[in-house]
Amino acid sequence: MRLKELAERIGARPLSGGEVEIRGVAGLDSVGEGDLTLLTSEKLAPRLKTSGAAAVIVKEPLASVEIPQVVAEEPLLAFARALEVFYVRPRPALGVMPGASVADDAMLGSGVTVYPMSYIASGVSIGDRTVIYPGVFIGEGVRIGEDCVIHPNVTIREGVEIGSRVTVHAGSVIGSDGFGYVFSGGRHHKIPQVGGVVVEDDVEIGACVTIDRATTGNTVVGEGTKIDNLVQIGHNVKIGRHCVIVAQVGIGGSAVIGDDVMLGGQVGVADHATIEDGCRVGAKSGVMGRLKRGVYSGIPVMPHLKWLRARAVLERLPELQRRLRELEQKLR
Amino acid sequence: MRLKELAERIGARPLSGGEVEIRGVAGLDSVGEGDLTLLTSEKLAPRLKTSGAAAVIVKEPLASVEIPQVVAEEPLLAFARALEVFYVRPRPALGVMPGASVADDAMLGSGVTVYPMSYIASGVSIGDRTVIYPGVFIGEGVRIGEDCVIHPNVTIREGVEIGSRVTVHAGSVIGSDGFGYVFSGGRHHKIPQVGGVVVEDDVEIGACVTIDRATTGNTVVGEGTKIDNLVQIGHNVKIGRHCVIVAQVGIGGSAVIGDDVMLGGQVGVADHATIEDGCRVGAKSGVMGRLKRGVYSGIPVMPHLKWLRARAVLERLPELQRRLRELEQKLR
Amino acid sequence: MRLKELAERIGARPLSGGEVEIRGVAGLDSVGEGDLTLLTSEKLAPRLKTSGAAAVIVKEPLASVEIPQVVAEEPLLAFARALEVFYVRPRPALGVMPGASVADDAMLGSGVTVYPMSYIASGVSIGDRTVIYPGVFIGEGVRIGEDCVIHPNVTIREGVEIGSRVTVHAGSVIGSDGFGYVFSGGRHHKIPQVGGVVVEDDVEIGACVTIDRATTGNTVVGEGTKIDNLVQIGHNVKIGRHCVIVAQVGIGGSAVIGDDVMLGGQVGVADHATIEDGCRVGAKSGVMGRLKRGVYSGIPVMPHLKWLRARAVLERLPELQRRLRELEQKLR
Repeated sequence: MRLKELAERIGARPLSGGEVEIRGVAGLDSVGEGDLTLLTSEKLAPRLKTSGAAAVIVKEPLASVEIPQVVAEEPLLAFARALEVFYVRPRPALGVMPGASVADDAMLGSGVTVYPMSYIASGVSIGDRTVIYPGVFIGEGVRIGEDCVIHPNVTIREGVEIGSRVTVHAGSVIGSDGFGYVFSGGRHHKIPQVGGVVVEDDVEIGACVTIDRATTGNTVVGEGTKIDNLVQIGHNVKIGRHCVIVAQVGIGGSAVIGDDVMLGGQVGVADHATIEDGCRVGAKSGVMGRLKRGVYSGIPVMPHLKWLRARAVLERLPELQRRLRELEQKLR
Repeated sequence: MRLKELAERIGARPLSGGEVEIRGVAGLDSVGEGDLTLLTSEKLAPRLKTSGAAAVIVKEPLASVEIPQVVAEEPLLAFARALEVFYVRPRPALGVMPGASVADDAMLGSGVTVYPMSYIASGVSIGDRTVIYPGVFIGEGVRIGEDCVIHPNVTIREGVEIGSRVTVHAGSVIGSDGFGYVFSGGRHHKIPQVGGVVVEDDVEIGACVTIDRATTGNTVVGEGTKIDNLVQIGHNVKIGRHCVIVAQVGIGGSAVIGDDVMLGGQVGVADHATIEDGCRVGAKSGVMGRLKRGVYSGIPVMPHLKWLRARAVLERLPELQRRLRELEQKLR
Repeated sequence: MRLKELAERIGARPLSGGEVEIRGVAGLDSVGEGDLTLLTSEKLAPRLKTSGAAAVIVKEPLASVEIPQVVAEEPLLAFARALEVFYVRPRPALGVMPGASVADDAMLGSGVTVYPMSYIASGVSIGDRTVIYPGVFIGEGVRIGEDCVIHPNVTIREGVEIGSRVTVHAGSVIGSDGFGYVFSGGRHHKIPQVGGVVVEDDVEIGACVTIDRATTGNTVVGEGTKIDNLVQIGHNVKIGRHCVIVAQVGIGGSAVIGDDVMLGGQVGVADHATIEDGCRVGAKSGVMGRLKRGVYSGIPVMPHLKWLRARAVLERLPELQRRLRELEQKLR
């Protein structure tokens, strides 16, 4: 594809070299001969020379760059679009393939694909163009919207509701029982977990994620929220819209998380905690109680700047202890 | 069902309104018109008014509550039972369904269900009424007791022994190889993991949990212990009875955990650590060495109260440093 | 097997009792009558007496031990070999079993086994003697080397390359999409993840591990590296050779990890961090930036000894605060 044509399709403007042939798209670390690449910082410009790149997306024209430049207001977005143009193909509609087990009363939209080894129970409905990969289990009465992709070996248990344009990566479990017991007479009695899970439109769920069903009512993942791998979401949790939840986060039962919240990797959120809209929590932190909009770190969390300062002194504690001892001796 | 009848079945006593028709059971957050609900604190009583609840389980009669009250000594237990009465149905016995792969010599009890896409190897025995969902793998010689539920896409490897009334949630792996190597000549040589796993009666295992087989001997999960999602249990670990292990806990090889132990979310337990009966470890803590009965927090753990006090000062470290500096200047 | 013969096969030397019959091999915790066992410390010698062990592997002859001793320069390695001799059998070559779904153009080497319920897509190549257990998904164009074992319910997505003698434990996912989005116009737009994953020879990957494919280029796991259960490896991560990555570690996108690195359980490594050859990072630590060869702990990490000292004072913070207050009062 010529650079001119590609630039147009990704909403960018070529400064020169519009006739150059682009063979692929790649990040600066893996660029090959003839690729369009992306420059996120002028400091990296020297690496372009030896890379073989045919052209580069930039935010503003750079005098130091010798290959054709394509200017985009949001360079990373333009790069994402270029990857899409070059590599993303619609999944073919293959229908229900032999070796799949689909209940007679399941309702499948048009252009749905169900791969072999998948199991679709009674009362399920699946929207147009959704793809179900091998090894997927879909329990009774589950509803899945349009243009979803359910990767291999995913389990979606009975009654779960999934919106449109949702992707669930391999090995994830949606609708497992919440972790609820009553301790009585020396043992733990199970509290039946009879609620559901609602996953709204445009959510992406990573691999080996677990989302528990509610005790009663629903566990909810709001529209456009993105969840990384190996995340745990407890029963009755409510997550708002457009959140980003990085890998290995654990969210305890009945926690409430607002819109546009960012939780770093391995964060833990205690049962019944509340995190308001727009909060950002640093990796490995622990959240209890209620967080107002802000940036937080620590176990349990404090405001991020406060944590940075405390953390800086932490290393010097042995020295502080020695100085204190010296003062005490002087005063004796 | 009339309130009178329901109360009797859950071991509770209606104060009034015994003839009221109960349509469902739900927590206060998701209660609908005509539901029986639960009040865990009198402070929440105002929320009852607008909820549409038809009746409420309480520990003691409350003057401020205007709808029929049902008194139970253990309200949460009564609530759990009410959920059971209303929503929990026995799973139908469907036998070995077409599309399942079951070895000729596997011994299945009466009323067993094996869904399609499951694989049961040679020498397996499965007790009465146990249900095996789709996508489950059961390796050679595995023994599973009565009334178990093995959810979809679970892997139970060769030789594992599972008691009765055990539930294993979707995606979990029982009997994977322990993580054991000898470093020699610049590389890691595998120590064959030839032991087994024993899961005793009434254990519940969450989704995407991994329990490694022992090097030799057995990894053991004791009777009545409940394990949440995404927990890792290393080789040769011994876990006692009636423990509660919250999500994303990791337990290193050969650790020994007593009875009635509670491990909070994301706790780590080092290889060969010992945790005595009745210990409680706060979320995100790290355990090394030996813990005597008590409550602990921190990395590594200290007694919880000590940790609370240290944590309180931690935030004030920059201030302490400043005050120390001022004292030093005064004395100079 | 007689002790003499076994000793020869494991590269060890019997001090006496070469004619003793050995019935099995087991660690000291699970030794049975007639077993060969291992003594890792002279302190444990008294336990041998009551154990029923027939012989014991030691590094140097011990006067206090009354049963036949076998001397090995690397006792644990000799023990591993003894387990192998007694218990490890080659997996039988069963071919493509009925109920497996294998694309017509997939290329399978000689002695390959594909169990039922597995799905092998178009363009896949699988090396000699490799075993594919039930419930495995292998996507388009995947290449797997010789003598690999892919345990049940594993997902290997399109284009992934796996070397020889690689073991992947149950439930793991290799080649899931990296977690990459551009935030624009109030929502997160997906950056297509069109790169691959390369797993080199002799790697072992635990259960429920997730390894994301690169955005462009490859995520790489180097030769001989061993990965425990529930580990997350982000997109474009490069891991060197002969590393040991303990359970529940999370490695952020584009991190670079050298050779012979040891990451303890539940460690987190931030995006773009670099860990040089030979580093050791203590359990539960958090790595940012660049680590030079050394031993580290803490969140974020500092040199391990520094951390030990700071951690020791941490417990005494309330006392330090009190002493500081007393000094201030004296000086007033």
